[in-house]
Amino acid sequence: MARKASLAKKSLATVCFVLAIYAVINIFHFPSASDPNLALDFSDRTSVTSSFRKNLQFHNPESSVKIYLYDLPHRFTYGVIRHHSLARGGRPPEDATALSYPGHQHMAEWHLFKDLTRPESDRLGSAIVRVSDPDEADLFYVPFFSSLSLIVNPVRSEPGAEPVYSDEETQVALAEWLEEQEYWKRNTGRDHVIVASDPNALYKVIDRVKNSVLLVSDFGRLKNDQGSLVKDVILPYSHRVNAYNGDVGVGNRGTLLFFMGARYRKEGGKIRNLLFQLLENEEDVVIKHGAQSRESRRAASHGMHTSKFCLNPAGDTPSACRLFDSIVSLCVPVIISDDIELPFEDVIDYRKIAIFIETTVALKPGYLVSMLRAISDERILEYQKELKEVKHYFEYGSSTVNEIWRQVAQKLPLIKLMINRDKRLVKTNFTGPDCSCICSNQTGIVTSV
Amino acid sequence: MARKASLAKKSLATVCFVLAIYAVINIFHFPSASDPNLALDFSDRTSVTSSFRKNLQFHNPESSVKIYLYDLPHRFTYGVIRHHSLARGGRPPEDATALSYPGHQHMAEWHLFKDLTRPESDRLGSAIVRVSDPDEADLFYVPFFSSLSLIVNPVRSEPGAEPVYSDEETQVALAEWLEEQEYWKRNTGRDHVIVASDPNALYKVIDRVKNSVLLVSDFGRLKNDQGSLVKDVILPYSHRVNAYNGDVGVGNRGTLLFFMGARYRKEGGKIRNLLFQLLENEEDVVIKHGAQSRESRRAASHGMHTSKFCLNPAGDTPSACRLFDSIVSLCVPVIISDDIELPFEDVIDYRKIAIFIETTVALKPGYLVSMLRAISDERILEYQKELKEVKHYFEYGSSTVNEIWRQVAQKLPLIKLMINRDKRLVKTNFTGPDCSCICSNQTGIVTSV
Repeated sequence: MARKASLAKKSLATVCFVLAIYAVINIFHFPSASDPNLALDFSDRTSVTSSFRKNLQFHNPESSVKIYLYDLPHRFTYGVIRHHSLARGGRPPEDATALSYPGHQHMAEWHLFKDLTRPESDRLGSAIVRVSDPDEADLFYVPFFSSLSLIVNPVRSEPGAEPVYSDEETQVALAEWLEEQEYWKRNTGRDHVIVASDPNALYKVIDRVKNSVLLVSDFGRLKNDQGSLVKDVILPYSHRVNAYNGDVGVGNRGTLLFFMGARYRKEGGKIRNLLFQLLENEEDVVIKHGAQSRESRRAASHGMHTSKFCLNPAGDTPSACRLFDSIVSLCVPVIISDDIELPFEDVIDYRKIAIFIETTVALKPGYLVSMLRAISDERILEYQKELKEVKHYFEYGSSTVNEIWRQVAQKLPLIKLMINRDKRLVKTNFTGPDCSCICSNQTGIVTSV
Repeated sequence: MARKASLAKKSLATVCFVLAIYAVINIFHFPSASDPNLALDFSDRTSVTSSFRKNLQFHNPESSVKIYLYDLPHRFTYGVIRHHSLARGGRPPEDATALSYPGHQHMAEWHLFKDLTRPESDRLGSAIVRVSDPDEADLFYVPFFSSLSLIVNPVRSEPGAEPVYSDEETQVALAEWLEEQEYWKRNTGRDHVIVASDPNALYKVIDRVKNSVLLVSDFGRLKNDQGSLVKDVILPYSHRVNAYNGDVGVGNRGTLLFFMGARYRKEGGKIRNLLFQLLENEEDVVIKHGAQSRESRRAASHGMHTSKFCLNPAGDTPSACRLFDSIVSLCVPVIISDDIELPFEDVIDYRKIAIFIETTVALKPGYLVSMLRAISDERILEYQKELKEVKHYFEYGSSTVNEIWRQVAQKLPLIKLMINRDKRLVKTNFTGPDCSCICSNQTGIVTSV
């Protein structure tokens, strides 16, 4: 009995001792929450790892931006997937909620939605915390699959009958649904976040949702009062070619400049045909027409992985997914699209990873190839190293999704200011719109090289 | 000896036990930095106090915004204080750097400067960290005493001689000095922060510094391309009357509406004389002309502490320091200034602390007093409670300064975006300015009551 007691005593002492050692380490490693002076001085405690510090702020529920995910009627989310499958003669998935990615959809609209349905413990590192009570929310996410809706081909139930799916009707129904929501009405949508990654998504109702934070690819189809860098977020397209996982280098990149894609495009994209004419006879340039197919994708992958530079002319709209293909291929993008907007530009200096050329300059005969041939291998390696640094931003795992949420979160202070200000603004004699702007300096470079 | 050993053992055991208890508490209270999963999950640990959590993010040197304080030539800082003293026939302070507040100066320009000269350990809770290496800086602070400079009366060294101080010359000299700085030239001042709290401060060189984050009182004297809610920060004036430190209540507030100040003002301030005519015969209203003097200030303090509502008409510019006098007096502000801008409006909903009335409506005979008389005591108490909640924002201790830095810090993502974007923008055919805007909804209320 005495021995047992002694053993118990010894065990207790050992436990106490271990805990005491932990305590001593802890006191010196980590500030105590009860001592505000100590607690606040993280600055010189190198033992607190940098990633821990970096993430900490996002796990502080008071500093994180709180978002409410609307439980939208089925027709605006999984219903669109169903109709898309039906329209293509496929069988709709039995349980679309279980899909990892349903295909054909712009990555952002799927992944942002799915991200918010994950438990918070799986969302570490996000600048946005989902809340179940809309009263607690700073922002409201409207997970309409707007870009997928745009490409659902009309399904006709019987020959000659009206189509059973209409994107326009679905857009209008969404706007009507939103306009009935208490939280939409409160601030006429200013604190709502809506994805519209296809440049034509939501076109029918854009004026009814333009107050919201729109997640877009560019402002090619939006008027000045519908979209802006101040209130909206530029999304990256997802890349379609395989990422190049090799190291930087020019040894296996025998082609100077590569392009594969549609030769004929509207608007700014008219430049493409002109570039074809200029470049198709250059021997170290591969420029060819390519349609959407698995075969082209494979050829494009190969071309981009074996070229130094990849041509990125404007398409129907200023931005195009090819840019992100180039980035993940470590193929230095040559951007010829004067009105392009670029995702995450507060954290990415695109001059370090891409070359910008003014359209009219790029069309001067001989200019483009001689300029690119003059760029040294060392300079190309520098571009590639930078591409390697940033390519994770464009791989639609949690990295891209988290970065999009971070961009959305950054909009909050101005959204809150505008909401508070709108409500107390009295009528003024001022007739024009009351806008606050930030203007570019228009340094107007001809080329960034 | 044995007893001593036993005592030592017991003491050690006690120390171990205490440390063990600490350890146990700590394990459950505070995540370990070495376990990333635990370390990141703060969300449901209520034991970590809210203020601790709130402050933590600002002490993460990686998430704080880094600012570089320019070591400006003396003439732009302490030199202005010296000239101000000389101009008023006073003796300049022997060591202006030791002053706690030199007087006559807009509070922000003094306190923001002094705040950045304090050691970082005294700056806990700030969203901005000062760095000594400009290469590390996100932002650059230009501590020119622009508002004090404006009011230095010309000192003439001899009768008939040229004045020895000229605000305009000083402004121009500052602009020239800035334009020679490497870090200014890099982004043409976009990442620079300059205080211009007097509406006329910097007027001579405003177009040369308009890219910077301007800390202003309103946009009354600035054009659309010079100042905006998107890039600039609205500062509060400092209050001049004593803060009311009593509790909320209407018992000792026998006056319905109080105003004391200049009757005649330019521009929007012309309304003042009209309001005098309307209100000076109402028996529960005190409205009187008052000049700047210690005596008036005492009378204004008394009036504001014993009134339910305080009138805040526009002055020469839309904003005026009287608003902040009203707030710290718990005297509900009645704001008649259609173009007013308000500080910290992302965190303060001014409809909760003030009444806004459209100018033309306020001038209808009888409207103002009958509207105010109809407001119940309960409603006034609600306003007062909210005033009490927010008044710390307007007492120029660290609270106001920290809030200003927080507002400045929030501008950084868009500044960085614009900097990166400007540099890669090619010449376009677009002739107008390339601006990104956010526009108000112009709900156009007549009164917020």
